[in-house]
Amino acid sequence: MRPHVFVNLAMSADGKLSTIERRQVRISGDADFRRVDLIKSQSDAIMVGIGTVLADDPSLTVKDATLRKERADDGRDENPVRIVIDSRARTPVDADILHKGPGRRIIVVSNSADPAKTALLSEYADIQVFGDERVDMSAFLEYLGTLGIRSLMVEGGGTLIWSLFAEGLVDELYTCVGNVIIGGADAPTPADGDGFINEADFPSLVLKDAKRIDDGILLCWSVKKKDGGE
Amino acid sequence: MRPHVFVNLAMSADGKLSTIERRQVRISGDADFRRVDLIKSQSDAIMVGIGTVLADDPSLTVKDATLRKERADDGRDENPVRIVIDSRARTPVDADILHKGPGRRIIVVSNSADPAKTALLSEYADIQVFGDERVDMSAFLEYLGTLGIRSLMVEGGGTLIWSLFAEGLVDELYTCVGNVIIGGADAPTPADGDGFINEADFPSLVLKDAKRIDDGILLCWSVKKKDGGE
Repeated sequence: MRPHVFVNLAMSADGKLSTIERRQVRISGDADFRRVDLIKSQSDAIMVGIGTVLADDPSLTVKDATLRKERADDGRDENPVRIVIDSRARTPVDADILHKGPGRRIIVVSNSADPAKTALLSEYADIQVFGDERVDMSAFLEYLGTLGIRSLMVEGGGTLIWSLFAEGLVDELYTCVGNVIIGGADAPTPADGDGFINEADFPSLVLKDAKRIDDGILLCWSVKKKDGGE
Repeated sequence: MRPHVFVNLAMSADGKLSTIERRQVRISGDADFRRVDLIKSQSDAIMVGIGTVLADDPSLTVKDATLRKERADDGRDENPVRIVIDSRARTPVDADILHKGPGRRIIVVSNSADPAKTALLSEYADIQVFGDERVDMSAFLEYLGTLGIRSLMVEGGGTLIWSLFAEGLVDELYTCVGNVIIGGADAPTPADGDGFINEADFPSLVLKDAKRIDDGILLCWSVKKKDGGE
């Protein structure tokens, strides 16, 4: 049984995660920041793609001390298990995610990763190998299930999110639509990669909730199962 | 005085206008179709970029006979003035926009357009020349104002919309966010082009309204003026 997978992201009103230079920009505001910190603290694990690590160097820690304490009081690590999908083991050894805050880290590589680099990274994180050229996401999520991880938050980027949608592995999508235009044909979007070609293959969503937050709006979608359920 | 410029588009939940092959796909539903037809019938003019003409071959006519009759009863053409921004005069002479339905057409070219092709198109549309390599949008919109055009609807695509935002020429943005994921790093988005690099340059919006329509949601944004007004 794989965990419940929910994607959370902030995009501009024209559907961008950041600029063409992939520089992190402020799209949502303080209320959304607190909301994201809360759902992160409620998750068993949080996952990003290597592109996000290289562009933003996030620590993926829970920021609010009270939320961290609540986790600790429950006998859990202060932070959810932090996961990087990194087929070729490109995570820098000084990446914040490997050093900031306590808790378990998993770097998921494929068989195409350089063993020497993998060995270096193994000093700071559990290394898991799934797939030959690219990480086999479905198999890895099954593995997470065996660890007792029930809820998995995905923070990006667009390439990882695309591959999850392409394999039918997303249960919910939260998009905070911010009140700015970023533009750029090459700017990252919530689902990049190859894209779907045939309309019949488009994942279909159900809009569960829409509520104003900061100067934008939070859209909460669930993903319909291909057999017709949700 | 340029007309009031409003952009109307449908995008997927991941911010795409269509697939990487630029094939037109169904993103919104019947209710949004009727809404778009209504606002089109209330506009003085409707504008698209050449990319949209080449990809979709739209006629841009008002579809509902009652709405067309209302325009005619007001002493207006059945359809708003239809405008193609087409710097290099690439509009096909058999494009639907040149042949379907009554009403005025304007093809806006730059000085870089082939005069022979421009001459051919002039049989079906007014030709206006603004700018050297690319159409000077600001000057063209001023010209539209002199024609008495007060409201201009922009239907796409992402390149034209980007250039309008880049020049501060958009007053309102209506996005119907549909309940599908399309994906694709190269799929068209609501604002393509070069994109803004600096956060200080991002156009800032005000969310005027958000209402569910079909299985998605319609977001109505106004664009803040750079001097702080709306």
